[in-house]
Amino acid sequence: MTCAPPNNPNTALQLDAHGRLRHFLTLDGLSRAHLIDILDRAEGFLGIARQAIKKVPLCRGKIIANLFFENSTRTRTTFELAAKRLSADVLNLNVNTSATAKGETLLDTLRNLEAMHVDMFVVRHADSGAAHFIARHTAAHVSVINAGDGRHSHPTQGMLDMFTIRQHKGDFTRLKVAIVGDVLHSRVARSQITALTTLGVEDVRIIAPRTLIPAHAEATFGVTVYHDLRAGVRDVDVVIMLRLQRERMDGGFIPSEQEYFRLFGLTEKRLATAKPDAIVMHPGPINRGVEMDSRVADGPRSVILEQVSNGLAVRMAIMSLCIGAHNFNMNQQDAADE
Amino acid sequence: MTCAPPNNPNTALQLDAHGRLRHFLTLDGLSRAHLIDILDRAEGFLGIARQAIKKVPLCRGKIIANLFFENSTRTRTTFELAAKRLSADVLNLNVNTSATAKGETLLDTLRNLEAMHVDMFVVRHADSGAAHFIARHTAAHVSVINAGDGRHSHPTQGMLDMFTIRQHKGDFTRLKVAIVGDVLHSRVARSQITALTTLGVEDVRIIAPRTLIPAHAEATFGVTVYHDLRAGVRDVDVVIMLRLQRERMDGGFIPSEQEYFRLFGLTEKRLATAKPDAIVMHPGPINRGVEMDSRVADGPRSVILEQVSNGLAVRMAIMSLCIGAHNFNMNQQDAADE
Amino acid sequence: MTCAPPNNPNTALQLDAHGRLRHFLTLDGLSRAHLIDILDRAEGFLGIARQAIKKVPLCRGKIIANLFFENSTRTRTTFELAAKRLSADVLNLNVNTSATAKGETLLDTLRNLEAMHVDMFVVRHADSGAAHFIARHTAAHVSVINAGDGRHSHPTQGMLDMFTIRQHKGDFTRLKVAIVGDVLHSRVARSQITALTTLGVEDVRIIAPRTLIPAHAEATFGVTVYHDLRAGVRDVDVVIMLRLQRERMDGGFIPSEQEYFRLFGLTEKRLATAKPDAIVMHPGPINRGVEMDSRVADGPRSVILEQVSNGLAVRMAIMSLCIGAHNFNMNQQDAADE
Repeated sequence: MTCAPPNNPNTALQLDAHGRLRHFLTLDGLSRAHLIDILDRAEGFLGIARQAIKKVPLCRGKIIANLFFENSTRTRTTFELAAKRLSADVLNLNVNTSATAKGETLLDTLRNLEAMHVDMFVVRHADSGAAHFIARHTAAHVSVINAGDGRHSHPTQGMLDMFTIRQHKGDFTRLKVAIVGDVLHSRVARSQITALTTLGVEDVRIIAPRTLIPAHAEATFGVTVYHDLRAGVRDVDVVIMLRLQRERMDGGFIPSEQEYFRLFGLTEKRLATAKPDAIVMHPGPINRGVEMDSRVADGPRSVILEQVSNGLAVRMAIMSLCIGAHNFNMNQQDAADE
Repeated sequence: MTCAPPNNPNTALQLDAHGRLRHFLTLDGLSRAHLIDILDRAEGFLGIARQAIKKVPLCRGKIIANLFFENSTRTRTTFELAAKRLSADVLNLNVNTSATAKGETLLDTLRNLEAMHVDMFVVRHADSGAAHFIARHTAAHVSVINAGDGRHSHPTQGMLDMFTIRQHKGDFTRLKVAIVGDVLHSRVARSQITALTTLGVEDVRIIAPRTLIPAHAEATFGVTVYHDLRAGVRDVDVVIMLRLQRERMDGGFIPSEQEYFRLFGLTEKRLATAKPDAIVMHPGPINRGVEMDSRVADGPRSVILEQVSNGLAVRMAIMSLCIGAHNFNMNQQDAADE
Repeated sequence: MTCAPPNNPNTALQLDAHGRLRHFLTLDGLSRAHLIDILDRAEGFLGIARQAIKKVPLCRGKIIANLFFENSTRTRTTFELAAKRLSADVLNLNVNTSATAKGETLLDTLRNLEAMHVDMFVVRHADSGAAHFIARHTAAHVSVINAGDGRHSHPTQGMLDMFTIRQHKGDFTRLKVAIVGDVLHSRVARSQITALTTLGVEDVRIIAPRTLIPAHAEATFGVTVYHDLRAGVRDVDVVIMLRLQRERMDGGFIPSEQEYFRLFGLTEKRLATAKPDAIVMHPGPINRGVEMDSRVADGPRSVILEQVSNGLAVRMAIMSLCIGAHNFNMNQQDAADE
């Protein structure tokens, strides 16, 4: 479809010889045109939610297996719904984490599912690189979607965030975007930064206490680091809040939830320095009173629930692209479905 | 459709401006015409079980989420089957009871599912009023079905019981109906009494030990109370047995299962005073040898398994009514399905 | 269809008055023609995996309930996928083993599912004879498939193994087949021996330590017993490895996994005495380094993953035969599906 950045090891793994998506593991290595193509395609799926019959037959007869090594009902549900809207059959597999201790056993599990003609694995795993590992070892007819791996990447979340930003702001190139919170442990933040940069956003800021910022962040990610929330959100168009994992409390990364909220929790007052039409985003689930005040979460600038709705359309776009239904004509859907 | 009793707080919540069912939370506040409409519609669904392809496309593309806060495989299965016969997609969600300790978290869960365009919540909860709470806070496009809340209401069970009675007895107005067992803790009994009264049954009796009868039952429910099984079932057309929750044993409500059976267990002999063509009902699962003798449960008067079959048709009727497929023409079903 | 061996108690239970499959409980009592019919029908289903839409509408609107009293994600998944390819609706029921302690409760569960118009039970149970028991007590409209009962039978596994052998070897009558491992506890081995014998294989060998061979095996099963792997596989066309249940270690049946592998583990070297084109089979999951070396499992003679693929086609054949879709015309599938 388009030229991907050369010499990126992800390019060879994710794209086929024609530059089309085969797996969806990371946004790193995808070109601007790839991202725009996904966003445009998702646009077409958005209307399906308003149809009487909210289904398209794009993936009819395909088998999509949710391989969730890390439990997440919410994320699994969005993938399951996206698959069902595409008319695929869904297999939810409880993958015992202990079984994956031996790499060999995991490979045998994959081989068996491939032999049953499963068409796609949606993989969630606590270890960074797990989806890449599976993509590297899977059969040619299978696509792998990364639904979050360790601290590494959560590319479908990154894309639904871009979709939501584009819906509200249009052109990316003139935007100022702030990402607030635990960037250090966040796969979501990594995917967002990559996507924003690829789409041409020049002013990307990360705002967090020193303990939650990766070393050399500015040089590595091309972002500006702030340790003060009010200063960081000044004049921004978009504020993206990250979820604070409760288990970080024990790690000594932050003193307490109250203290975190006092310094980095988003309130209407602190949001005052942002642009008047700034939008507020959060990947969910929100810890109310920790990352943000309920008045912000439920307020007029919040687009958090739109993110959820958009997540369905974006996942449908990515899944159908990877599964190879390239020739789909949106206008044929009703005829084919009945 | 028809006039509902005025000034009933349930009316405004359950019915839309045209008097049509939007949610199905309780039978309290529904008119006789509403109940008859459900029974008639269910009649039409009964034949589907005899078709080669036991499906109608009424809810095709709709998403129905089972929100079971209280575990019940049996009830969830009947709703799941009813939804699948209506061609809906079903989402079974394990709702961690602990998560509902905070009302806010439950609301965030609801908001998220609404944003994913879920069309219906089927709610089971140990607390009375939970389904009402959810209906009161849900988005305009979502319907809520109460699949049992605390001691309050189990309206789909009540309706399938009415359907079964009408199948066997026709006209409700001349019937004598006895409800036997733990009325105090039974949401099933509450729904049955409301339905029977609304449908014009004048002689409704409840039969139980004093410890299992609500205070002021006669005045509150318009029923006659009996503490003697043989006297209570004299001349009745219908005997409805309630399930005895085993956990009541510990509560000191009854001395022992054996003692309960000795006084209130239904046997062929005790059934002798009822009308010769009396039918015996039970919502299941039966505690054989506690609520009734196996010879009664499996005998010629038992319609217990018919209740199960009817449950599917009645739930299909209620779900399709609420989901708004008002214009369905039964004769179009085969054409539309292929 | 064809004459089954007379006076076999399984015949009356499994076949209808016309000799057609009603249940699929055991291979014992089925004629050669029955088995060939299943294999031929499965052949027709094999191509479905290569279609764009991997579904046929044979069991559309049918409800297939997985009644797994013994946990097995892998086997349940293959039945679930086979059912979905046949366009059936699948119900996965968690059957609490404790609930089956009382036979009466199990029967009440069956009665309820029958009343919900379930069309097929796929039964897995730790007790030998459980599927027979259920078939004997189920309603006339329900078919029962045995997905493994105790040490007794695993007939769908037996048939997929025969399918795989026929694919590679064609005619059964001239074959030499060795079954290696824990024959004593293996329901898989019992089904394989019955199938091989019925299909005309004259040289069936079982190879295992004395502690893992049933008493009087040669007389009972018509096989030759070997206690030496190299001697047992000499000149064979097919080597079927059995899975070693880890829990046997504790039972004192074998000294250790290492010791077992040293004597009965399949290696390339030990396989050298078999025919040059011998195939190696295993029902999975493999204990690598216990039953066989990875070089054999992943080597050119291994057809283990083909067994998995064939399992889908064979289960589709058996399920659709039992569910009574006798008049299906393969050529109509696409027309009917769209």
